[in-house]
Amino acid sequence: METIAVQDTYNDAESHCYGCGRLNPHGLQIKTYWEGDQTVCRYKPQPYHTAVPGYVYGGLIASLIDCHGTGSAAAAGYRQEGRELGSEPKLRYVTASLHVDYLRPTPIDATLELRGDIEEIGEKKVIIAITLSAEGKACAKGRVVAVKVPENW
Amino acid sequence: METIAVQDTYNDAESHCYGCGRLNPHGLQIKTYWEGDQTVCRYKPQPYHTAVPGYVYGGLIASLIDCHGTGSAAAAGYRQEGRELGSEPKLRYVTASLHVDYLRPTPIDATLELRGDIEEIGEKKVIIAITLSAEGKACAKGRVVAVKVPENW
Repeated sequence: METIAVQDTYNDAESHCYGCGRLNPHGLQIKTYWEGDQTVCRYKPQPYHTAVPGYVYGGLIASLIDCHGTGSAAAAGYRQEGRELGSEPKLRYVTASLHVDYLRPTPIDATLELRGDIEEIGEKKVIIAITLSAEGKACAKGRVVAVKVPENW
Repeated sequence: METIAVQDTYNDAESHCYGCGRLNPHGLQIKTYWEGDQTVCRYKPQPYHTAVPGYVYGGLIASLIDCHGTGSAAAAGYRQEGRELGSEPKLRYVTASLHVDYLRPTPIDATLELRGDIEEIGEKKVIIAITLSAEGKACAKGRVVAVKVPENW
């Protein structure tokens, strides 16, 4: 596993996202790493991220898939160009579309593991398939279409 | 506009959701009302719900669409049965799938308005199309497939 998280290489101005910004003290501050050809994010929900007591609400699952998706897109962009994570010019993606299928209730006291597979990568667009698991069982499957942010954003 | 929010009719045990539970003090506590044949929810983001400064992160938008979707499903379920909101037996839905298309950046200092149209309603499943707008412009379009929770859940 690489020790650098994609989100820790974002420019400061792009690090305020509630889901993944290291500079947002209120936020989730998720981290995306490569593990072989997959991207991985692990997140421990807070007790108040409830759907019904004992289970995680769907919006958190969508948020994790969303931000792990854009992080995975950036990671894939660097790899595609044969560059190190965070090398200049920096890569940053935003979500064009998000799809989540909720397969089973997601336990709130588990560490959630999200694994991303890069399905398609073009010059501006990356499509990532993500499985969110808890205690070894897939609880949700997501698909993110991420689009590269222009340098002059 | 009806003055009773769907979420205020949920059983206490089903009112802890981070997105829409009136008993979750940390959560968003969104409210869904009928306005004619549409369901409406209005939400003012917090300053820290940032994507990049000035704009709302995608996970909040997904969360609002998700919980407004399940709320709309319950509202539609009562109407379909010719019953008042919150009459017994209570109706509660969970999300089977969620799709969001992000159309343009969503300003963080606006009140967001979500309008739901009931696309399909069956005995157990409701499909809701939702448009999220800010300052009169559609910023995201979502689709929620919601499934009725069995009474003995």
